[in-house]
This record gives sequence, C-alpha cells and structure tokens, in this order.
Amino acid sequence: MKIAGAVGVVNFQEARVRLGRIQVDGPDGPVPRLAVADPARGLVVDLVRAERLRLQRQGASPEAALRLAAALFPGSMAAAIGAGPLLVEAAARAVEADGDGDGDAALPLDEVRLLAPLDPPRMRDCMAFEGHIRNAFGRLGSPVPTQIYELPIYYKGNPDTLIGHDAEVPWPAYSQYMDYELELGFVIGPHLGPGRSLTPEEARPHLFGVTIFNDFSARDAQAREMGGSLGPAKGKDFATAIGPWIATADELDLESLDMVARVNGEEWSRGSIGQIMWSVEELIAYASSSEPLLPGELIASGTVPLGCGLELGRQLQPGDVVELEVSGVGLLRNRLGEPEPLRWSPSPRVPS
Amino acid sequence: MKIAGAVGVVNFQEARVRLGRIQVDGPDGPVPRLAVADPARGLVVDLVRAERLRLQRQGASPEAALRLAAALFPGSMAAAIGAGPLLVEAAARAVEADGDGDGDAALPLDEVRLLAPLDPPRMRDCMAFEGHIRNAFGRLGSPVPTQIYELPIYYKGNPDTLIGHDAEVPWPAYSQYMDYELELGFVIGPHLGPGRSLTPEEARPHLFGVTIFNDFSARDAQAREMGGSLGPAKGKDFATAIGPWIATADELDLESLDMVARVNGEEWSRGSIGQIMWSVEELIAYASSSEPLLPGELIASGTVPLGCGLELGRQLQPGDVVELEVSGVGLLRNRLGEPEPLRWSPSPRVPS
Repeated sequence: MKIAGAVGVVNFQEARVRLGRIQVDGPDGPVPRLAVADPARGLVVDLVRAERLRLQRQGASPEAALRLAAALFPGSMAAAIGAGPLLVEAAARAVEADGDGDGDAALPLDEVRLLAPLDPPRMRDCMAFEGHIRNAFGRLGSPVPTQIYELPIYYKGNPDTLIGHDAEVPWPAYSQYMDYELELGFVIGPHLGPGRSLTPEEARPHLFGVTIFNDFSARDAQAREMGGSLGPAKGKDFATAIGPWIATADELDLESLDMVARVNGEEWSRGSIGQIMWSVEELIAYASSSEPLLPGELIASGTVPLGCGLELGRQLQPGDVVELEVSGVGLLRNRLGEPEPLRWSPSPRVPS
Repeated sequence: MKIAGAVGVVNFQEARVRLGRIQVDGPDGPVPRLAVADPARGLVVDLVRAERLRLQRQGASPEAALRLAAALFPGSMAAAIGAGPLLVEAAARAVEADGDGDGDAALPLDEVRLLAPLDPPRMRDCMAFEGHIRNAFGRLGSPVPTQIYELPIYYKGNPDTLIGHDAEVPWPAYSQYMDYELELGFVIGPHLGPGRSLTPEEARPHLFGVTIFNDFSARDAQAREMGGSLGPAKGKDFATAIGPWIATADELDLESLDMVARVNGEEWSRGSIGQIMWSVEELIAYASSSEPLLPGELIASGTVPLGCGLELGRQLQPGDVVELEVSGVGLLRNRLGEPEPLRWSPSPRVPS
C-alpha cells in the first residue's frame, strides 16, 4: 500500500504509516477500532479485520484469528503503542495482506466516523513558542513571565474530553469567549529502558508520531485560573481536538512542518514548527524529568505565533468551523456547538 | 464483621467499609487486589479470595467462582467503583461469609503490603482553605490572588505516580526544597445520571468516600511554574501519597474530620475540615461543570491552614518520615528518599 499525503507518496514498506481510530457497530453499541488511513485514495483499513482475515487465510480458526488480531490491535491506541515496534510492523503486514489496502478490510474514508486517533493516559501542553506568549500576555496587559525562558513549562490537559475530526466542540456554560489554538501533538512511543529523566540526546527514539492538536480555550475562564496561579483547568478541559490521525515520526521532517488555521474557510493563522523555542527532544526530556514517560502519552507544542484568536483580537462564535492543517499530517476540522445552559456557578467568598 | 476505627465501631451491615488494595504474588509478578481493612483487629480481607470461596461453597466451580469474583473485584479500585452500589454490597457479603472477616480470606494487616487504595483516572487538587493560601503566598511575598475567593480553582495532579502507605517518596533531582501537604481526598462514586454540570444540591450522592492525601511538593520547582502562570506540574508530579484506605462517605461526619501531620514523630500541623472555604458539595459541583465526573476520580481539598512546612518556615530532609492522620480515616506514613542524580536541565533561552 502506498500512502500519499500533502508531502507526497511514502512507502509503507518503510513503516511510514498514518494510524487512526474509526467507530464501528458492535453487539453492545459502537466500539473503537484501529485503522490505517490512505487519504490520497480515500480509504481506511480496519486493522482487526485485515489481520483476522490474514490469519484465517493462513489456517487459523476464526476464533483464534479474532483473538490474536484483537490483542495486536485493541481499541485503545495507547495500549497498542505499548506493544512496541510490533504495532507498526503488524499494521504494515495486515494492510499489505489486504491487497495493499484495498481488499476486504478497506472502507471508504468518507463513510467512516473518525475518532480521536489516540486515548492518551496523560496530556501536557507546553508554552514553547515565544511569539505566542509575548502576543497573548501583551493582549492581556500582563508582562511576559521570565520563567518561560528558563523551562519548557506546561499545564496538564484533560484526556477524557478529547474529540476527533468532525466532532462538535461543546461550548461550556461558563464561557463567553471561545478560541482555538494551532498546535502540534507529539505522541510518545513504547517503553525503551526506564523512560525517566532522559537527556535530549536520548529523547528522540521516544517520539512515536505527530498529530494535530487544537487546544480549544475558554479565554475568560482561563484568565481567572491563571490569575489565581493555577491551571488552566476549566479554561481548557471541556474539549481538546486531535487528529485526524497520527503520522509516524520517521515520515516527517520535524524541522519544517507548516501549520495553517482557517475559520469558516478564512485563513486566520499561519506558522511553522521552525519558530519553536525548545526542541521536541528538549520537551520530551523535560517531561520525563523525575517521572516516567507513558506509552501513548501526548505532549503538545503550545500555540504557534498568531495561532489563535486572542492574538488577533478575534473570538469564535457558535457554529463556526475551525480547520487546522499541518503539512504531512492532515486536516482537523471541528464545529463549535451552542453554549450549554448555566446550571450553577460559585458564589464569591468574602476574604476574612 | 465489625470495623473499628478512631471514631468507634461501625457496622458493616450499614455498608460502612474501609476499602483498600494489597499486593499479592501472581504467576507473572505482583498484582493488586481489593481488600477490606479492620484496623482495630489488625486484619484485612482479600476480597477476590473471600468471594471465590463463598461462591464455591454455594456450588460454583472453582473456575466460575474465580471468574465472577475477579469481575466484581478487579485490581483497579476505580473500575470496581464503576460497578455502583454493587461494590460495597458485594464486599460486605464476602466479608460476612468469611466468618465476619477472620476466616480463610483474612490476612494479618502487618504482613501485607498496602498499595495506594485508588488508581484514579484523574486527580484535581483545590485551594479550598483560605488560611493556607494567605500563609503560603505571604511566605512567598506575593499578594493573595482575588480569584481564590471567586472559584474553587484547582490544578490537576498526576495519577501515575501515586504511592500508598509506607512507600518511599522519590526526591526529584531538580529540587532542593521538599515539603508535605496535609489534605483530604474525596473519591467520586459511580455514574448517577449524567454527572455533568451538577449543582451542589445534586453533588453529595457522587461522593463515594474519603482518603488521606499528602500532596508532596518540590517548592522551588512549584514557585517557578506558578510564576509562569501554569501548573504546577514538576512541583508536584513526582509523587503523591494517598491512603491507607478509603473510608466510605456514609461512615464519616464530613463537618468534623480532625487532621494532624507529624514529621519524625513531632507534630508540625493540626487542622480540621471545618476550616474549609468551599463545601465538598461545591468542590464536586465545580469539578463537574461542563465535563463529566469519572468513577473513582479524586478531588483533593487543598492544604489545611499551617498544614505544610512552607507555612512554618521548615523543610523536609532525606529520610524524614511524614505521618498524616485523619480521624475516622486512618494514618498515612511515608519516608522521603535520597535525592535522585540530576542528568540534565534546560539551558535558559535569551528573550528575542
């Protein structure tokens, strides 16, 4: 199977893969399945199905074939990544056996529901682009904290409200000011040694792949939380979009990923990973300091300069469609929902 | 089985339970098991074993008995809590069948290794005690942020470095200033309706139980991160201690939990939940705003006034033993390890 993207055709034999997750119907409701995408041909391959059929053709019973295929390709991408190099090798083998990806396990891309490609056990989002920080703090009338030049500091996101391509973004009841953020998400691979307190020189093999990361933000809630020296939490945790898939790291030139954001078809933001202040290896090494990396965890870059509405003096409205596109990775599209009704908010306390 | 604690004997028939996790040997290494503790008698009951034996006595085959017992009492407490009221009912039934807890499934408490009683899918830690915030910001020479009076703001902790009773606290390489924090941890119960955007009036049924929460802190790293308006992350994420078990909420008078911290046997801190600025119901309701609560997630109270070394001008040293005790819940003890070697730290960047 040849997989083509915005940066050209790449060869599956070299384990260059776009991995994602699709939703299929099961006896007890919808279930997630791992898939390999071929966006140029408009196809995805259901990996459990491709591997099951491959094993059956080799003489495995249907039950044994399903058991083995499901163990290799669980619905959790993080769990699958935990299997190590086996995952990408097995995905390539299954797709190749499926007639190079257009056999019995192939589905039209426009007929499947894409899920968030990853279910990370943890999410961190760094402030790694100086330009964004200068612009954003400037808009808020605050000085740029000197700490951002000392450490690639981050906040921890909410893996439990991740959404994928074409999913609606819930508009939290407590916010009047919604925004997008144009970012990259770096996916951590399987355990390789301790995975703890790495140096940047040791970090690169821990990078499994890259996805697009839209750090949707409730700016009013975020400003309150950061003013209180914590978080952000409610400013971010209602939803984060990732996808449409994970491009494996060996496919990409990490020095030259071009990034674009469009709102309702109009270009609002354009940037490049080349503007980053800390290297991907430094972000991974810092994340691992005195705590172990986890397979499938996600470390986001922070917003590229002018990569959000706040920096432009613009806000999103209900119904707006936000598209983030990254060369070699894909296009992630989400529509803003209607504001949720406010059921309660805390009554302020009087300082003692 | 009667379960006795610092607040007196309580009756299992009313589902008043201390739930925890112990480590047992398995064919592929140690595995976690759910247990009920009877600290007054110095016993714990291995719940899988008690339920398996109960089912076998009723005529189940050993294989079926084990399968059913393991489904009721998985190694994950969060998964077990997800089963709803079934968990506490089944635990009470299994312990009662085990000769009221001193039968074949009972083990001496001082011979088992206690694990963190919970593996929460998410951890939040609030700033809910005004006195602590005033003291801590005062020591740091910073004004108290007005936002703490507007919202029960929190940071998100790291569930992946939780440790239990008697486990050693790793001392992160990047810190010269280690501290403890005397807090309560509120454990969220199973799904009850949407569990999203609750009011305080709706929140109380979502409280499953209470545990002791020691939010170990690398104060130097924390100050850098909070100065950068994010986090904290590295200031906290190396380790958090919880335990020794979860006291189910119906056992406790949430208005009057007394809290004490001792370092090497000397009392450093004493406080009470009565000093809290936001009620437990308000903390849960706020946590649920525009995002669903998760079974087994943990919401911590923040530090009680004078509940940490920072407020007292004192620091922990390697080898120090920290004990936190809460009436009706138990005693959580941890020893500080030796500082890890520093392998790398980021080189500061020059502002452009």
